[in-house]
Amino acid sequence: MTGPVFAIDPRQRDIATELHASVRELPLICPHGHVDPRILADDEPFPDPARLLVVPDHYVTRMLLSQGITPARLGVPSSAEDAGVETDGRTIWRLLAANWHLFRGTPSRLWLERTFSTVFGIDTPLRAETADEVYDAIAARLAEPAFRPRALFEQFGIEVLATTESPLDDLARHAKLEADGWGGPGGRVITTFRPDEVVDMEFAGWAGKVARLGEITGLDTATFPGFLAALRSRREAFIAAGATSSDHGHPTARTVALSETEANELFTRALRGEASPADAETFRAHMLVEFARMSLDDGLVLQLHPGAVRNHNTWLHAAHGRDVGGDIPQATDYVRALQPLLDLHGNDPRLRIVLYTLDETAFSRELAPLAGGYAALYLGAPWWFLDTPDGLRRFRESVTDSAGFYNTAGFVDDTRAFCSIPVRHDIARRVDAAYLASLVVQDRLPFDEAAETIADLAYHLPKRVFRLDARRSPTQEVESR
Amino acid sequence: MTGPVFAIDPRQRDIATELHASVRELPLICPHGHVDPRILADDEPFPDPARLLVVPDHYVTRMLLSQGITPARLGVPSSAEDAGVETDGRTIWRLLAANWHLFRGTPSRLWLERTFSTVFGIDTPLRAETADEVYDAIAARLAEPAFRPRALFEQFGIEVLATTESPLDDLARHAKLEADGWGGPGGRVITTFRPDEVVDMEFAGWAGKVARLGEITGLDTATFPGFLAALRSRREAFIAAGATSSDHGHPTARTVALSETEANELFTRALRGEASPADAETFRAHMLVEFARMSLDDGLVLQLHPGAVRNHNTWLHAAHGRDVGGDIPQATDYVRALQPLLDLHGNDPRLRIVLYTLDETAFSRELAPLAGGYAALYLGAPWWFLDTPDGLRRFRESVTDSAGFYNTAGFVDDTRAFCSIPVRHDIARRVDAAYLASLVVQDRLPFDEAAETIADLAYHLPKRVFRLDARRSPTQEVESR
Amino acid sequence: MTGPVFAIDPRQRDIATELHASVRELPLICPHGHVDPRILADDEPFPDPARLLVVPDHYVTRMLLSQGITPARLGVPSSAEDAGVETDGRTIWRLLAANWHLFRGTPSRLWLERTFSTVFGIDTPLRAETADEVYDAIAARLAEPAFRPRALFEQFGIEVLATTESPLDDLARHAKLEADGWGGPGGRVITTFRPDEVVDMEFAGWAGKVARLGEITGLDTATFPGFLAALRSRREAFIAAGATSSDHGHPTARTVALSETEANELFTRALRGEASPADAETFRAHMLVEFARMSLDDGLVLQLHPGAVRNHNTWLHAAHGRDVGGDIPQATDYVRALQPLLDLHGNDPRLRIVLYTLDETAFSRELAPLAGGYAALYLGAPWWFLDTPDGLRRFRESVTDSAGFYNTAGFVDDTRAFCSIPVRHDIARRVDAAYLASLVVQDRLPFDEAAETIADLAYHLPKRVFRLDARRSPTQEVESR
Repeated sequence: MTGPVFAIDPRQRDIATELHASVRELPLICPHGHVDPRILADDEPFPDPARLLVVPDHYVTRMLLSQGITPARLGVPSSAEDAGVETDGRTIWRLLAANWHLFRGTPSRLWLERTFSTVFGIDTPLRAETADEVYDAIAARLAEPAFRPRALFEQFGIEVLATTESPLDDLARHAKLEADGWGGPGGRVITTFRPDEVVDMEFAGWAGKVARLGEITGLDTATFPGFLAALRSRREAFIAAGATSSDHGHPTARTVALSETEANELFTRALRGEASPADAETFRAHMLVEFARMSLDDGLVLQLHPGAVRNHNTWLHAAHGRDVGGDIPQATDYVRALQPLLDLHGNDPRLRIVLYTLDETAFSRELAPLAGGYAALYLGAPWWFLDTPDGLRRFRESVTDSAGFYNTAGFVDDTRAFCSIPVRHDIARRVDAAYLASLVVQDRLPFDEAAETIADLAYHLPKRVFRLDARRSPTQEVESR
Repeated sequence: MTGPVFAIDPRQRDIATELHASVRELPLICPHGHVDPRILADDEPFPDPARLLVVPDHYVTRMLLSQGITPARLGVPSSAEDAGVETDGRTIWRLLAANWHLFRGTPSRLWLERTFSTVFGIDTPLRAETADEVYDAIAARLAEPAFRPRALFEQFGIEVLATTESPLDDLARHAKLEADGWGGPGGRVITTFRPDEVVDMEFAGWAGKVARLGEITGLDTATFPGFLAALRSRREAFIAAGATSSDHGHPTARTVALSETEANELFTRALRGEASPADAETFRAHMLVEFARMSLDDGLVLQLHPGAVRNHNTWLHAAHGRDVGGDIPQATDYVRALQPLLDLHGNDPRLRIVLYTLDETAFSRELAPLAGGYAALYLGAPWWFLDTPDGLRRFRESVTDSAGFYNTAGFVDDTRAFCSIPVRHDIARRVDAAYLASLVVQDRLPFDEAAETIADLAYHLPKRVFRLDARRSPTQEVESR
Repeated sequence: MTGPVFAIDPRQRDIATELHASVRELPLICPHGHVDPRILADDEPFPDPARLLVVPDHYVTRMLLSQGITPARLGVPSSAEDAGVETDGRTIWRLLAANWHLFRGTPSRLWLERTFSTVFGIDTPLRAETADEVYDAIAARLAEPAFRPRALFEQFGIEVLATTESPLDDLARHAKLEADGWGGPGGRVITTFRPDEVVDMEFAGWAGKVARLGEITGLDTATFPGFLAALRSRREAFIAAGATSSDHGHPTARTVALSETEANELFTRALRGEASPADAETFRAHMLVEFARMSLDDGLVLQLHPGAVRNHNTWLHAAHGRDVGGDIPQATDYVRALQPLLDLHGNDPRLRIVLYTLDETAFSRELAPLAGGYAALYLGAPWWFLDTPDGLRRFRESVTDSAGFYNTAGFVDDTRAFCSIPVRHDIARRVDAAYLASLVVQDRLPFDEAAETIADLAYHLPKRVFRLDARRSPTQEVESR
């Protein structure tokens, strides 16, 4: 099975296929994702096919929920005692197979089918009648040593994989990985600094988390300067564990530069439990400016992905917790929101901010003009609901005019689903190949430049933008221009 | 004339043509439209071509108005005494023909031309010189018995057609149709419950309409509980006349769950004439929650189509009244607006809400993620300004990623133009065929699944979503999963 | 080199090529642009290639800035004494060539490359190694008499070119042009009335500019009626210099009809320096209504292009001034914003308003429904960040459904870059040819109508909409229908 070609015209398909072939085997750069580092630290066999491919995949469980099949029937853990969570992997798998038609035309279908085929070597089409056959075949593979996480990591051709951790994480799995020759600065598995839970006052137990940050760092986080110092300290620890970027998931892209006095006052008021939702928004906005300042010093690339209404599905959240498919995008402004931060540091090429969106109307109207006009800005790959063949295509069609290719940051798989990583990168490469082929066919770009570009998009650009290459300091980078 | 194929590549065109051929003759399911039931109840011959195809078609009259040709010159009725409304059908028709170039590339051109061709058998291209020839040919057909409404209904292959009535309507035409073996539950012509004029306090004469609702039902609509009881009573009457859905046209998608006390207070204040525009918005928002509750009991599918600024063209409204082309879409939020309703009932598969939009930015950002994550939600077909070959294509390209095909509700023609019904369904089937063919050509979907899908989209899915199949109760449906 | 064809399928390419060939040699109508009239009045040789093609092109300098190459290094003038502005054209050119890959897939690449090829006859691909060769070849051409501005104007086939001037401009260059047989009403070079700096109270030195307007006209601009009279007076002067349109660049599309008293009060308050930002917005909104009234009298076509956040990049603005690439689009509402103006004059076919946007979400949702339903409205070509092959294509795909072709105003190059004018028009013609070819291939439009349409779009329609043909009065035009 050679895989989909995201073009229709025969000549475009031929050129796309040739461009894709030229980057097909390039190593995978995975600077942004949510794989549990324990998987690679422990290197235990994966559990059954349903627990590997269905239960943790919120794309899959939400689609089934949309047709009335509850997460509990799909084995999604629940805090409710009487949830009746299904525990038999085969039963879950059969439910997926019986409803496989729901996924026609969706990226989930593509990811799973290509995973069956390219990772597990199974080309039997999934349907109700073949559910057991496919299940058993995958289960058999999972029992083999070649399907242990580290073996797959190498088979997948991953050069570097970033996981995501809170500043409260002790990075013990990364220490284990480093001890095994897999982690540390320049290593194969690195971490990412994701401080949302200590920055977002609306997180349950925020003040306690801030106190815990103080304990971990031995600094007094009861004051705002101490809080900042503690964050800086954790960033150093993360950098020592290989981190080259931070990751910030905010409801909006708003930034604001409070005075020191204002920030102190807001912070201490919040610790007293007196912060309003507007205060929380202001604090998140101000902290983006603080993190930009820290990045100027320590070189972490600042990733911002705003625009999700978290836990929109309140029943789902109550029954099954966060990150199980209940978030919904909302319209997101970048132009006014980012201006305070850009006023301060937007023209500083030592700073590197990667912007994501769930609102594709921002592509041509806001994000491309911003990234094509500020030295600090790069556009992250289409994210989440937009991380699809058509979403990736529309991204290129919408941003290239004003941002070109070289203000984009390359594909990020952004996934918890370890086994889907090679498939996701492959699809992104295929989509970029088809887009570049369309330019070639229209006589807008010579083939040789298209070939150079696809290699940059697939490999060199993410490595450079996320500072995974020479791991040089920002100042060294700028001086070399 | 075989008709347009909405694809360019020869292989895609071949596959699209084959897919379309497989559903071309399937009966038409018309669950949402605005045909006057009198047409079918009386079964009188249609008037002249202009009165049939130009005067009542606001797509056509607004385009001509945009070039300075007034609705009066096109025969659109006016309340103004000195309007000088044209009464000669041939004169109106010649004006259309002389300005036919304005419609190049528009859906009106396609609908009219295909209607001439497939309904009336006329392939002469319309232009100034052929105006009389085409007019006379259509007029001749309209005089034949085979072109009476009921004969056309059967020739068109319509399986079921829903009209739209106010709760204040006595459903007399539907009673006549039932007496003739054409109406009633499970019949060929059914009604739809459209309560806007008694729900929207901003309608002229709202309080009087509420009083009239009380008279019709014999219930005391001066209190909110009585008002709700009267609505429930009318819903039962509508269901007895075959209705399977309600239809709600609101300026926004806002929902809110007032307490009983708050709702009572707001309702009685409004009856006293003391409601503000904000009150009216709140009341509409609350009533959507009430209607969802009623739907849970009586099974009517709740259709919501928000986002039109009604009577934006105030001169047009003053001169010619409502629904003559003076409405304009506006940006529409669904994510925050629907949350109160979804909090209460969004995960209940017994509830079925079909969402429409005039704001296509919501397709990928809001509507598809919502419909792909809540059991109660389905996406209605592209509506009004978006009910075009390109609008239908962009709908599939934008929503399939997150919602798939099976959270969409199938095509609705939404038309008053009876003779355009087969053409509109045919174009929708052709567009879906072309979209599915694009997936086949790209190796994203096997042909056999594409063929099954197009039959579902064209026939089975609207029948099921609008509860037109077994006409089972919502609970029976859910239990059968 | 025959140039790009913006289609992929061979048959569509053939038809597009044929349609393009049929309009390729039609004269250029340039009703909206920002060429410095001095260039044509003085007819001096152009300076070196960098000063002609790089330094003044903010598309180019902002892209380089986005990768950390400062405008000063590119020769962009600065008010800062220590800016270190590069003065050597060759050095600037080499910097462009060394970073040429940044422009892959962008319109700048296309415009520059096609300018090299079709204007200067240079087909050597630009890259670091060929920088000097290309530079020297262009420089050699620029020294030839055939490359003087007026000679190029004729070679380009420009029929009419509108520049843009403030009411404070003395139109001396246009007087010179008229004296030379190049300007005046019906002439080859005309002006456009652009009153922003005396209308927008947020312009630095606004009150002084208003006073200056009084001096120029000999009218008392210290009162609002005097201010309006002065503007009318300048409009007459502009019309005498050939103007057929006015041009209004506002942050939003808001309109409002103040009473005479309110307007007087606001105006005099502002002259006292007491206007708030909200006052300034209201005044701009009201002035659009005033300008529409003036247009009804004097026939100037009113162009409105809202939606840019001017000087978003504050560092860039401080260092290098306005219009150097630091503006960013924002989401823009038209439906509510324009209603006050449309209520008054939207159905008057004597008024002609051409609307532009930087927010393409408005195309299908707002602009096409508005232009397809109001006699006064026309859609301007995709503007600025959207003036690209893909932007032009998406415009047609989004607006044709509701507005057709004949409510659009034709291409405007909107450029300061004189040498890019033929290339920009040619690309727009190629994109329209490809779009029309797509309709032909899909059997949605016969070839002969496509051919008539492309000639209208390329030539006849802009001439008519911008009143450049018979230069008849609005009333004469309407009466002729």
